[in-house]
Amino acid sequence: MNSDIKKLLQDVKSGNITIEEAELKLKMKPYEDMDYAKLDLHRGIRQGVAEVIYGAGKTSEQITGIINAMLKNNQEVILVTRMSEDKALEVGKSVDLKYFKDARIGLVGDFPKPTGIGKIVIATGGTSDIPVAEEAALTAQALGNDVVRLYDVGVAGLHRLLDHMEDIMSASVIVAIAGMEGALASVIGGLADCPVIAVPTSVGYGAAFEGLSALLSMLNSCASGVSVVNIDNGFGAGYLASMINHMEAK
Amino acid sequence: MNSDIKKLLQDVKSGNITIEEAELKLKMKPYEDMDYAKLDLHRGIRQGVAEVIYGAGKTSEQITGIINAMLKNNQEVILVTRMSEDKALEVGKSVDLKYFKDARIGLVGDFPKPTGIGKIVIATGGTSDIPVAEEAALTAQALGNDVVRLYDVGVAGLHRLLDHMEDIMSASVIVAIAGMEGALASVIGGLADCPVIAVPTSVGYGAAFEGLSALLSMLNSCASGVSVVNIDNGFGAGYLASMINHMEAK
Amino acid sequence: MNSDIKKLLQDVKSGNITIEEAELKLKMKPYEDMDYAKLDLHRGIRQGVAEVIYGAGKTSEQITGIINAMLKNNQEVILVTRMSEDKALEVGKSVDLKYFKDARIGLVGDFPKPTGIGKIVIATGGTSDIPVAEEAALTAQALGNDVVRLYDVGVAGLHRLLDHMEDIMSASVIVAIAGMEGALASVIGGLADCPVIAVPTSVGYGAAFEGLSALLSMLNSCASGVSVVNIDNGFGAGYLASMINHMEAK
Amino acid sequence: MNSDIKKLLQDVKSGNITIEEAELKLKMKPYEDMDYAKLDLHRGIRQGVAEVIYGAGKTSEQITGIINAMLKNNQEVILVTRMSEDKALEVGKSVDLKYFKDARIGLVGDFPKPTGIGKIVIATGGTSDIPVAEEAALTAQALGNDVVRLYDVGVAGLHRLLDHMEDIMSASVIVAIAGMEGALASVIGGLADCPVIAVPTSVGYGAAFEGLSALLSMLNSCASGVSVVNIDNGFGAGYLASMINHMEAK
Amino acid sequence: MNSDIKKLLQDVKSGNITIEEAELKLKMKPYEDMDYAKLDLHRGIRQGVAEVIYGAGKTSEQITGIINAMLKNNQEVILVTRMSEDKALEVGKSVDLKYFKDARIGLVGDFPKPTGIGKIVIATGGTSDIPVAEEAALTAQALGNDVVRLYDVGVAGLHRLLDHMEDIMSASVIVAIAGMEGALASVIGGLADCPVIAVPTSVGYGAAFEGLSALLSMLNSCASGVSVVNIDNGFGAGYLASMINHMEAK
Amino acid sequence: MNSDIKKLLQDVKSGNITIEEAELKLKMKPYEDMDYAKLDLHRGIRQGVAEVIYGAGKTSEQITGIINAMLKNNQEVILVTRMSEDKALEVGKSVDLKYFKDARIGLVGDFPKPTGIGKIVIATGGTSDIPVAEEAALTAQALGNDVVRLYDVGVAGLHRLLDHMEDIMSASVIVAIAGMEGALASVIGGLADCPVIAVPTSVGYGAAFEGLSALLSMLNSCASGVSVVNIDNGFGAGYLASMINHMEAK
Amino acid sequence: MNSDIKKLLQDVKSGNITIEEAELKLKMKPYEDMDYAKLDLHRGIRQGVAEVIYGAGKTSEQITGIINAMLKNNQEVILVTRMSEDKALEVGKSVDLKYFKDARIGLVGDFPKPTGIGKIVIATGGTSDIPVAEEAALTAQALGNDVVRLYDVGVAGLHRLLDHMEDIMSASVIVAIAGMEGALASVIGGLADCPVIAVPTSVGYGAAFEGLSALLSMLNSCASGVSVVNIDNGFGAGYLASMINHMEAK
Amino acid sequence: MNSDIKKLLQDVKSGNITIEEAELKLKMKPYEDMDYAKLDLHRGIRQGVAEVIYGAGKTSEQITGIINAMLKNNQEVILVTRMSEDKALEVGKSVDLKYFKDARIGLVGDFPKPTGIGKIVIATGGTSDIPVAEEAALTAQALGNDVVRLYDVGVAGLHRLLDHMEDIMSASVIVAIAGMEGALASVIGGLADCPVIAVPTSVGYGAAFEGLSALLSMLNSCASGVSVVNIDNGFGAGYLASMINHMEAK
Repeated sequence: MNSDIKKLLQDVKSGNITIEEAELKLKMKPYEDMDYAKLDLHRGIRQGVAEVIYGAGKTSEQITGIINAMLKNNQEVILVTRMSEDKALEVGKSVDLKYFKDARIGLVGDFPKPTGIGKIVIATGGTSDIPVAEEAALTAQALGNDVVRLYDVGVAGLHRLLDHMEDIMSASVIVAIAGMEGALASVIGGLADCPVIAVPTSVGYGAAFEGLSALLSMLNSCASGVSVVNIDNGFGAGYLASMINHMEAK
Repeated sequence: MNSDIKKLLQDVKSGNITIEEAELKLKMKPYEDMDYAKLDLHRGIRQGVAEVIYGAGKTSEQITGIINAMLKNNQEVILVTRMSEDKALEVGKSVDLKYFKDARIGLVGDFPKPTGIGKIVIATGGTSDIPVAEEAALTAQALGNDVVRLYDVGVAGLHRLLDHMEDIMSASVIVAIAGMEGALASVIGGLADCPVIAVPTSVGYGAAFEGLSALLSMLNSCASGVSVVNIDNGFGAGYLASMINHMEAK
Repeated sequence: MNSDIKKLLQDVKSGNITIEEAELKLKMKPYEDMDYAKLDLHRGIRQGVAEVIYGAGKTSEQITGIINAMLKNNQEVILVTRMSEDKALEVGKSVDLKYFKDARIGLVGDFPKPTGIGKIVIATGGTSDIPVAEEAALTAQALGNDVVRLYDVGVAGLHRLLDHMEDIMSASVIVAIAGMEGALASVIGGLADCPVIAVPTSVGYGAAFEGLSALLSMLNSCASGVSVVNIDNGFGAGYLASMINHMEAK
Repeated sequence: MNSDIKKLLQDVKSGNITIEEAELKLKMKPYEDMDYAKLDLHRGIRQGVAEVIYGAGKTSEQITGIINAMLKNNQEVILVTRMSEDKALEVGKSVDLKYFKDARIGLVGDFPKPTGIGKIVIATGGTSDIPVAEEAALTAQALGNDVVRLYDVGVAGLHRLLDHMEDIMSASVIVAIAGMEGALASVIGGLADCPVIAVPTSVGYGAAFEGLSALLSMLNSCASGVSVVNIDNGFGAGYLASMINHMEAK
Repeated sequence: MNSDIKKLLQDVKSGNITIEEAELKLKMKPYEDMDYAKLDLHRGIRQGVAEVIYGAGKTSEQITGIINAMLKNNQEVILVTRMSEDKALEVGKSVDLKYFKDARIGLVGDFPKPTGIGKIVIATGGTSDIPVAEEAALTAQALGNDVVRLYDVGVAGLHRLLDHMEDIMSASVIVAIAGMEGALASVIGGLADCPVIAVPTSVGYGAAFEGLSALLSMLNSCASGVSVVNIDNGFGAGYLASMINHMEAK
Repeated sequence: MNSDIKKLLQDVKSGNITIEEAELKLKMKPYEDMDYAKLDLHRGIRQGVAEVIYGAGKTSEQITGIINAMLKNNQEVILVTRMSEDKALEVGKSVDLKYFKDARIGLVGDFPKPTGIGKIVIATGGTSDIPVAEEAALTAQALGNDVVRLYDVGVAGLHRLLDHMEDIMSASVIVAIAGMEGALASVIGGLADCPVIAVPTSVGYGAAFEGLSALLSMLNSCASGVSVVNIDNGFGAGYLASMINHMEAK
Repeated sequence: MNSDIKKLLQDVKSGNITIEEAELKLKMKPYEDMDYAKLDLHRGIRQGVAEVIYGAGKTSEQITGIINAMLKNNQEVILVTRMSEDKALEVGKSVDLKYFKDARIGLVGDFPKPTGIGKIVIATGGTSDIPVAEEAALTAQALGNDVVRLYDVGVAGLHRLLDHMEDIMSASVIVAIAGMEGALASVIGGLADCPVIAVPTSVGYGAAFEGLSALLSMLNSCASGVSVVNIDNGFGAGYLASMINHMEAK
Repeated sequence: MNSDIKKLLQDVKSGNITIEEAELKLKMKPYEDMDYAKLDLHRGIRQGVAEVIYGAGKTSEQITGIINAMLKNNQEVILVTRMSEDKALEVGKSVDLKYFKDARIGLVGDFPKPTGIGKIVIATGGTSDIPVAEEAALTAQALGNDVVRLYDVGVAGLHRLLDHMEDIMSASVIVAIAGMEGALASVIGGLADCPVIAVPTSVGYGAAFEGLSALLSMLNSCASGVSVVNIDNGFGAGYLASMINHMEAK
């Protein structure tokens, strides 16, 4: 806690401890007071609007406990990712929770009003990429973004993508999600003039090798402005997209 | 030789050898007489219009020898693939050889008149894919095809490709050649309604992994009608394209 | 829709909208009117004779719905690929569906009369490759092709393959399907003088690595005229074979 | 060209061509007039301040020609990436070019004044990552960004990184470049609250496998806000960082 | 059948068919008569003493059918490999079958008397390699070999192996089977002066990568006289060992 | 047995066997008498304080049998690793066994008093790495070590790790266990001045590739004093840590 | 040395040392006296007829020295493998050495008379596999085998292979060497009824991946009696073939 | 510097700065004063006896400069690793440097007296592993260890290794270095009862895959007490071995 360092410095000033003792304490616990992360939250993140809980590997009791603690702390929007339907049912008994089955996401409170620079477009190559896309979309919405969904616009049917040129040209950030068709990121990257976050998915069979093919394809994109996150990492893409969409001078 | 089997049968008829002896001979050398391939030619192929010699690993003397044998045999068009410039110079001293440096191909005689069903389009993602593309294009030309070259139409700049929709829509076969941008095959496969032969190239760096990324990407193409040949195998693609472009009832 | 562009041009002519407005609209929605693909169909393909529905990831209700829409549209032959037996039973309750268990394919209507240039030969290395082979064979049949099945003709027992030389020599296109024995494509490629589409299968154990071994082996085939599709992609091979077998001048 | 569509629409209006003819033309060449990209430029990009030429695979004559065309076009800042020292010398004979040897980058004109939201921090794990870092840094500078370099702050000597907490906390975007130490991206991602672009480098030996180890490590980063570009792709990272640092409402 | 060729030759001799007709027939069906393989048998093998049926993918009815056909044909020893316990129970209802659970092998008849040059030693690195070892051992026994089992003699406890030096020194062929400890093949190869057949197994976890580690390790053995078969291929090793142990002049 | 060699030498001395006979016997059974390993124990290890049984692949009867044999032999502490809960229940019926569910370890007797040089720190990147960590920790405790657990101190939240600098600085050996965050080993290796044993875990998804990413990352650690064991090999790390923590002059 | 053990036993008998001292000595140096291998020879092998020296990494002086030592020891045939032409020239100055450039092998003395059971057939898929084949062939000849060379009989031109059925049917052992066409081993394995040693070569390009494709293909051979050695390991194959061809009762 | 924190605390005490200012400063530069590492040294290490400079990527001027700075600082033993012979010659002009060509290591001063607990044994599988072994050995010697070299004791000639049982049994730490023969680590790990550090080398060809085979093999060692460092990382192994050999209570 910040109060710890303050206390220490006050003790030094008042002579309660020697300078040498204070020096030792400070060297050994340098970050104890930083407090910008919280142990129980999704990979230790916090970004104003919403709190995110990583549901995988947590029991429904633990999830309920964390949500209640947050609510007491006046947190208005809470997102729980990677939560099975079973856990959602259990948690929903004592908490007012909306559950999004496709995305395996639970929401407490309402999506906040969008506060970002512009719109985030979430595009998928096929319909089987939708669960990952919804994880990205709901994450972005919970973090205060206006989200446009363009699903099933894979490059093998280019006209479906081109029908949405207006969305693509007016996006602030685009999340391009595709399994076999890693090509989607390259094509969108070439059409758009905003950052494109590519998410390979483990969808596909044979030489798709659980997402490896899409991953390599996306990393090799010749379009500028494209970067890649881990296979199936919808949350990471949604979070980064929100971060970029909220850029402001420090 | 066919004459061998004939001879054997005549010997049987005339009683020169017994049925049992003939039976043994036939079992042991069943294919001796088929003669549809030739040892010194490019992977044993022959297709009317032109002969193709695989130049890699052959000395200029050997290449010259084979060409001369073919010429005596009234072969009018001869293509030598994977031939270094040095060898071409050497062979050119005694043979009337046109050398195509990019494609590392030598040509004896003139390209024959196109006899195929329609046109073969050869498209590349970038300019560095051109050597492989030229190997494909010249092979197809030497085998009697009308070839249209669409180079540097990679998907990161989609308009360049779409500018050539007419070529794509009117092609009989398309060869899609790309390194990092394996996406080209998917996009073309989705636009065209003819067979697409995808050739991954070893162009690129980092996670391109010597063509592996493009190869996997092409194998996973969601577009129908796409198949893949080995990395950098321009000859194979050109040959297959010609074969398809000359389909006829047997 | 085509009517959209026409309408726009009429508006320009009649002065309803300015040239500048029309220009903008056209740039932003260039393909809106092409309509050569249909969202709900198998990777957006259509080829006269039959419609193909990709069954994986669709509920039996969705499949039934699409089939009924097609039937109303006077579509006479409909193929549903990658459909589990359960779904087939469910769909069969309200639709007249023949189910092919091996191939996991459902058929509405009858196979059309063959209209191709010649015959398509489907060959497999072993008996465990048959499900993939049947997917290829039924696809080709539904698209109007005469199909010859040569199953279990793997190269470790060469005589079984050579017993069928006549089929191989008279084929228009050959689909060579093999798991551990990727060799089949090379051997057939060397014997035949028509295009060979190689399909690696995930059959095998140990160093077969889920089809990777067969895939690499087929890509490295020294025979000319051989190309490769994704592991287990029987549909893709059957579709491409049909496309080649229906080649004609445009 | 835009004038093409305009002309077409005028022809429709004036009755020079029929509506049907215009409709066909529009369908076949939808993008001919978009002109947001230029064939000869670095992956077809353009972003106000500077033009970028991809030098690899271009002769010094070609590079000189493109530069001169740009200069005539009043382009004030031109960056040439992946240019060998030899070519730089050659180009420098007729063009006023500053050459940055480490980054293999040539610059015509002066770096523009920074116009971004904040600062871009470029951090490397070791000294051997510096060439890639300089490619990123100079690209970002040429595109109008204030760049802070933190080199050799690998995680095996954490204090070196922590000594620069102030830079990290005040960055708008961070580019984290590392070979063996892919860990750098995770650690910085955990410390910073801005987007982090991770660039794996091919530095290292043995199980570094030409950058594969760092690539996988970065993709698996548990920190939020981290995305990855291709191995050694300093330009891509610098370009994307600039894009994010210039975010504004559309 | 042989009788076919004989018949043909007789027809030629008697003038029933012309030489040309016979020539054509012979070219088209060259191997029809060779008969050295049988379709229903294990990869088409046959080696005097025993017949082997590959049980995987065959129903118990099929297996029973084949066994009965063989028995009628006076085959005295029949081995069924890769047979589940369920199938064995089923087959055992109508056939006198001994089932070896570990090896998943069924035996009809008795093991023949050993007829080989010497003894075949089957060694394993651990106890979990025993199922593969038993497949090898029983195969070898069924083919007429004297088999010595040395199980759990992995190199991490070298004395266990060295305790059996006499067996190793007196072996005709050694089959070295190991998972994580691919080292076994090298060590045995260095100690023995007979052919060593190495079988990697998929035993192990983590970086064992399903047998890949052991496979690579065995291929890199520095000992002479070592060769490798597929992961878990006990049958293949036992069959080859028997073949070597029955070497004789032809 | 040792008595064997002694007996042999006595026989030589007494003239019961000739020198030549003894020589032969000695050459053929050189290690028969070494007896430093025991067949039924965990990879043949033994280290004073405790015996370790590798539970995987052993029945509960076998485990019970071995434990009883050890108890009769006055062994006071016995650890059973990789034991399922079912087996533990079964074994617990006749043996006084404490079962640690997370670590899948059973303990007979009490943990001995620590006898090592200092403390062993077991650190994990996340909470999902805890089962592997507990395997390491309990193994080390059973072998007589003082163990400090630092769980969930992954590098994406660096302050959690730095909060425990005192533990890290005072450790004798550190075991760093991490899945996606292979970075942990590098960071700890840079902070600590004692041997660090890195254990990659198969935790994670996508490009974590079952632990491969963490494994490569750890092998490439730039920190000195870091070495790596197999993926998920908690036992191996705990055993090695104990060995190092008990170093003494021989 | 054997004399050491003898000496020890004599000392025991004569009472020069105690039984306990002897026991200790014997336990610590068990193999000191075995002497079946020689440090400077090719992987410690020796097989009657010829000695083999592994030339790679040895200077021409070292090679000359070893040869002279062997000659003094009355060794009549000496083979030096992996020897560059330069070294051969140098060694040839003082030693009567025949050099085989293709195989990079040097021979002192004459090839011995064949003493094996039958003939060893060495077959290659293409002409580029010949260097590896010659290493195998000359090794086998130097070890006393009758060798038949069948080069360039790859499966893409099956008739070339079938033309040599007689050689294949009468072989004692076959070495099948192929790069891209790993298929050769399967096809030969299916035709022959003798052991087949498969050697993948690093010949080929693209997806041949330096021999990996051929290696996997050969390991997956469905033919019985096939085993595999390391990529390009001609010596190993020739040595093993000779071992099998000299099988005899012990 | 420590003086910085002291100064700050004194300023707080004396009221020169406010508690709040001090708090901020301390949070932002927590580690500025730790000083346990030095930027220019080998991966920031320091261990009493010797300083180590990582020579790769440093000019001879830089190396000379660092050495001189160290000498002025009274450093008596300095090791320069990964230094080419050229640089050594250059550095040697102004500094008294012994150069070890095999290990590519330069030494200033004399090796210190051994101070470790016992002996470090460095063992290699073959002679080509010696450069890596010498890097390990000289590093260990420079850090004050008694080193025993056991070179060319690969497991294919087990007697060579067993001849040195006494060395192995009496070692404090063993470094096992091997390329193709990754088996060495397992065998030594099974024989010894001390920590074994395994170093895979990139020696070998074909399926050795630049050290990958040995790396996997070593990670899968069934022997306890074995851990692995990066391919060819002799320095890392020597450093870790020294660290273990100097274990003492803190």
